[in-house]
Amino acid sequence: MVITFLSDFGLQDGFVGTCHGVIKRIAPEAEIIDITHGIPPQHVLQGALVLNNTLPYMPEGVHLAVVDPGVGGQRRPLALRTGEGRLLVGPDNGLLMPAAEGNGGIAVAHELANPEYALESVSRTFHGRDLFSPAAAHLACGVAIEELGPPVDPQALVRLDVPKAEVGQNRIRATVLYVDRFGNTQLNLTRADLEQAQVLPGVRVELELALERYYAVAARTFADARPGEVILYEDAYRNISIAINGGSAAELFGVAAGQEVRIHLRTP
Amino acid sequence: MVITFLSDFGLQDGFVGTCHGVIKRIAPEAEIIDITHGIPPQHVLQGALVLNNTLPYMPEGVHLAVVDPGVGGQRRPLALRTGEGRLLVGPDNGLLMPAAEGNGGIAVAHELANPEYALESVSRTFHGRDLFSPAAAHLACGVAIEELGPPVDPQALVRLDVPKAEVGQNRIRATVLYVDRFGNTQLNLTRADLEQAQVLPGVRVELELALERYYAVAARTFADARPGEVILYEDAYRNISIAINGGSAAELFGVAAGQEVRIHLRTP
Amino acid sequence: MVITFLSDFGLQDGFVGTCHGVIKRIAPEAEIIDITHGIPPQHVLQGALVLNNTLPYMPEGVHLAVVDPGVGGQRRPLALRTGEGRLLVGPDNGLLMPAAEGNGGIAVAHELANPEYALESVSRTFHGRDLFSPAAAHLACGVAIEELGPPVDPQALVRLDVPKAEVGQNRIRATVLYVDRFGNTQLNLTRADLEQAQVLPGVRVELELALERYYAVAARTFADARPGEVILYEDAYRNISIAINGGSAAELFGVAAGQEVRIHLRTP
Repeated sequence: MVITFLSDFGLQDGFVGTCHGVIKRIAPEAEIIDITHGIPPQHVLQGALVLNNTLPYMPEGVHLAVVDPGVGGQRRPLALRTGEGRLLVGPDNGLLMPAAEGNGGIAVAHELANPEYALESVSRTFHGRDLFSPAAAHLACGVAIEELGPPVDPQALVRLDVPKAEVGQNRIRATVLYVDRFGNTQLNLTRADLEQAQVLPGVRVELELALERYYAVAARTFADARPGEVILYEDAYRNISIAINGGSAAELFGVAAGQEVRIHLRTP
Repeated sequence: MVITFLSDFGLQDGFVGTCHGVIKRIAPEAEIIDITHGIPPQHVLQGALVLNNTLPYMPEGVHLAVVDPGVGGQRRPLALRTGEGRLLVGPDNGLLMPAAEGNGGIAVAHELANPEYALESVSRTFHGRDLFSPAAAHLACGVAIEELGPPVDPQALVRLDVPKAEVGQNRIRATVLYVDRFGNTQLNLTRADLEQAQVLPGVRVELELALERYYAVAARTFADARPGEVILYEDAYRNISIAINGGSAAELFGVAAGQEVRIHLRTP
Repeated sequence: MVITFLSDFGLQDGFVGTCHGVIKRIAPEAEIIDITHGIPPQHVLQGALVLNNTLPYMPEGVHLAVVDPGVGGQRRPLALRTGEGRLLVGPDNGLLMPAAEGNGGIAVAHELANPEYALESVSRTFHGRDLFSPAAAHLACGVAIEELGPPVDPQALVRLDVPKAEVGQNRIRATVLYVDRFGNTQLNLTRADLEQAQVLPGVRVELELALERYYAVAARTFADARPGEVILYEDAYRNISIAINGGSAAELFGVAAGQEVRIHLRTP
């Protein structure tokens, strides 16, 4: 059984390795795929978006995700089963919801309350190790989700506010969702949004970020643009992103997730 | 058989991947758990502390650790067996000692001297690849530790100076042992030390770092503190740490491992 | 079957994890060894050098490598079989060539053109996920390389310009190939080059970088030098490197890959 694992733990410390050890002590046959541990510390929305984008490419199994600023407080620890049969484990802070709802919806949700499926001593600050990893490992061993604790009404689970774009006639007001290693800057827009605003491949627009304006061109891929040219393109997860052919858009613009971007159609 | 692996190699270069390759060529059935490779370059004490903190969560097996500023010089390459039956492999510079002594003590120690269990050509600068990884892989295949080379008296092995705190009546003088990705700052203190100095949960103290003073409160977990409040808490490895609820203590204080921290009980 | 994987994807985002997922959906039995994903973004030459240095330490299998600035453009996607039977998968931009030519030469090359061995929908910007990982996974499952697409003449493949050193009587003009995490600075020189220029162990030289000059000494290993001393030594991949005993040469000199270094033999 495969266990995928996403977190904001980074790889500098031993947090991820410790969770691997805990899983392997309980489920020696389980195979762990690390989706990423580079989610910015405690950015639940970033974690939720990456989990949602990547889950369709993962083998079906148990999907462990930990971005957990509320650890030690009142937030519930959860296991979910989706309509497609995937099992998700993590905190009830919205982290799991886009991925669950995008993969068949939530069939059942259970609170992790059975101490039999946690480590013997549960710390107040590292539930990834003491609670979530053991639960994921026991699920991978075939323990039924119902064994982990009482059911929770899926309607009662915490949901995130994912920012929505405003798409006008020749004008779009969007938000940066994610900036990747290459500086490509993902927006909360789809190709349909661009088409509605008449921004078709080849059309030139103005991008407004902070108080600066930049020219950009809608393109199908990097190869359609000249080196150094700013492009708007549909990225590999079907979101519209801003990139610079051969450079880093994020570095040029100084953008970060959460920032507003306005796109103006230039009058010819 | 599981081989755990900790080093200061980082993941930017191919050092870790190369060691994985070497291990898998010798021991195709071995399963490798990377504890971390983010130990700061050549910080033997940091590596020793992380290995000691994480080893209890690892499946029993072979435990490879390489933080090795003395590579190519006179320091011995070692394999140890602990009283609990774990096998540790690494340089004789103290790196393995806290973990070995915390997991049953050293039953036997052997110098890696048998060329049959090293790569054919051993470089002067990458014993992780040429000496330690092959030894770990052969142990995982069932080679007896005695085969690797002559025994060494455990008393003769290099030990590290781990800084000790001074705990007075209303005053503690401690040292920063470790700063993690979240900025949580681990001290060489236990809960018993705090209690001896009458610093109980809810008690306010002053922290003195460099020449600055900050207020802090002893707390059980982040959730007991207000956002932005500095807390002293028992972390998941049972050391006392300094954190800021919702922020990075290390960033605020500008601390690094090795720095002195004084804790003063405020007179009411 | 082992699949090794090298890229410039970094570990901050979910790119690497996504490729692991894609591989495991197709080839659940394949075992993946991550050589590194820390190649600087889009530095094909750096990726080619690391792949070439590390491949001999890898089990034979499928060797996936993706550093791909031309994705979505005209560059061919490739699979190669070397004379030694290794299978290499990646873009036709020179990335695979030093490793292929250093491991038995290219026996056959095929363009990845058969959609049966790609994901159903191939994006324009993430061929690592949609094209290269599936091809590697199918090869690991035993699909013949001929099935992946039409043969390509090995002579027609793109090759990189690897900078060559100029070795004079008492003077060498070299180029920095690679700077590692420890600040060790690898040059395009071998021990034979140093010997030709009469730079033998113990000999003192002057290094000229940018417009600065530094003293250095040729040494066999760090342990032969005093702390803080700059040394020229044969590194673990048999290239000549510059290091500082106990420090970071790259930090002191401010060097980066591609920079020129001149080595002058000091007249006694």
